[in-house]
Amino acid sequence: MSAERVNVKEKVLSANDQLAAGTRERLARQGIFSINLISSPGSGKTTLLERTVDLLKDSVRLALVAGDVQTRNDAERLIRHGVPVEAIETGGGCHLDARQVARSLEAFDLAGTDLLIIENVGNLVCPSSFDLGESMKVVLMSVTEGEDKPLKYPAAFRRASALVLTKIDLVPHLQFSTEQALENACSINPDLEVFSTSSYTGEGLESWAGWLTDHVLANKENAEGAGS
Amino acid sequence: MSAERVNVKEKVLSANDQLAAGTRERLARQGIFSINLISSPGSGKTTLLERTVDLLKDSVRLALVAGDVQTRNDAERLIRHGVPVEAIETGGGCHLDARQVARSLEAFDLAGTDLLIIENVGNLVCPSSFDLGESMKVVLMSVTEGEDKPLKYPAAFRRASALVLTKIDLVPHLQFSTEQALENACSINPDLEVFSTSSYTGEGLESWAGWLTDHVLANKENAEGAGS
Repeated sequence: MSAERVNVKEKVLSANDQLAAGTRERLARQGIFSINLISSPGSGKTTLLERTVDLLKDSVRLALVAGDVQTRNDAERLIRHGVPVEAIETGGGCHLDARQVARSLEAFDLAGTDLLIIENVGNLVCPSSFDLGESMKVVLMSVTEGEDKPLKYPAAFRRASALVLTKIDLVPHLQFSTEQALENACSINPDLEVFSTSSYTGEGLESWAGWLTDHVLANKENAEGAGS
Repeated sequence: MSAERVNVKEKVLSANDQLAAGTRERLARQGIFSINLISSPGSGKTTLLERTVDLLKDSVRLALVAGDVQTRNDAERLIRHGVPVEAIETGGGCHLDARQVARSLEAFDLAGTDLLIIENVGNLVCPSSFDLGESMKVVLMSVTEGEDKPLKYPAAFRRASALVLTKIDLVPHLQFSTEQALENACSINPDLEVFSTSSYTGEGLESWAGWLTDHVLANKENAEGAGS
């Protein structure tokens, strides 16, 4: 990579980090817990979010940002579940950035929000380099993608706090070893919180939703403690 | 995006295009047909290539380039099938570029090669912008990814000459409409040659391998015609 290119890349990342820090501070002040969902295209991010919203929306005040290269399909699917959703179309861009997210937050009533979920563009490489100001990154991986993805795309797994293994209802039809996949993921990041889920059968979703709720509550308490 | 950033991006793409044009000319002179395989992580590129190599290696002289963000796993899997393979580890890079491919060609006996297959990094966004000097791009999409991928990641489908739908053995276990997926793909690119395949059952692989062979033969004839 040329020196000029590296220099521009560093500037872009540093400008992004500053904006992200501002968002993080703003969300912390409001006591909002936020996650940045990262995965390959077609890993089941939107379907997981539809189920998650249904499980949480009576107890947690949600706001969602849905990023896509093209189309507003994901946002439209999520809006039908009765929660506020902002769509970001990157128009070819391979990841969301902090500026896009900061701008989309303007549309929400943040004082009335407990949990912000940002669905990144489907891409297991680029999104992991761009801080959006989230509390935590969560990486999704479907069982149909094979056991080796954590080894081949380590950055996303290294920077995530949790791994949601999706589509586990398909395991009986695959040559897929859940044990091997989790061993690979934990070799990259031993601190990963792991959820094995199926948005089709519902397996594992209560546990995932419970983890989110716990963080929402802890975050609220921290914000109240800091404000008193 | 800043003007500086756009400027550097244009320079990078233009330098890449020049290198790719050189590779294309070189491969054409040798009568080598080449494809650049693009898909999400875990769509089944390497498994398809393992089956393709087994079907073709007695009749077609193959050379393979396997790109990955990290690990040489794919290259090692392919080498076991008795064909020359070069691995490119991008070390975080989200796509292969023309320079990496041009360099990896040095390792092959191009005079003794009919078909060059380049397996790009698993990413449905960035690789579609970088010409590697290939004859054609081929996009893979597994049935587990959902019908909407062509609409959400149109560039890869628009620039490809063929679409290989993979893992069709799983369709009975999914809520997936092959008809809808192909309708979406053809709405982006009506000229796509489509192959519905399962590397597990072998369905559709003969047809895919036949298409490659036809192009290898046509390419050889063109090169001989031009050389005579």
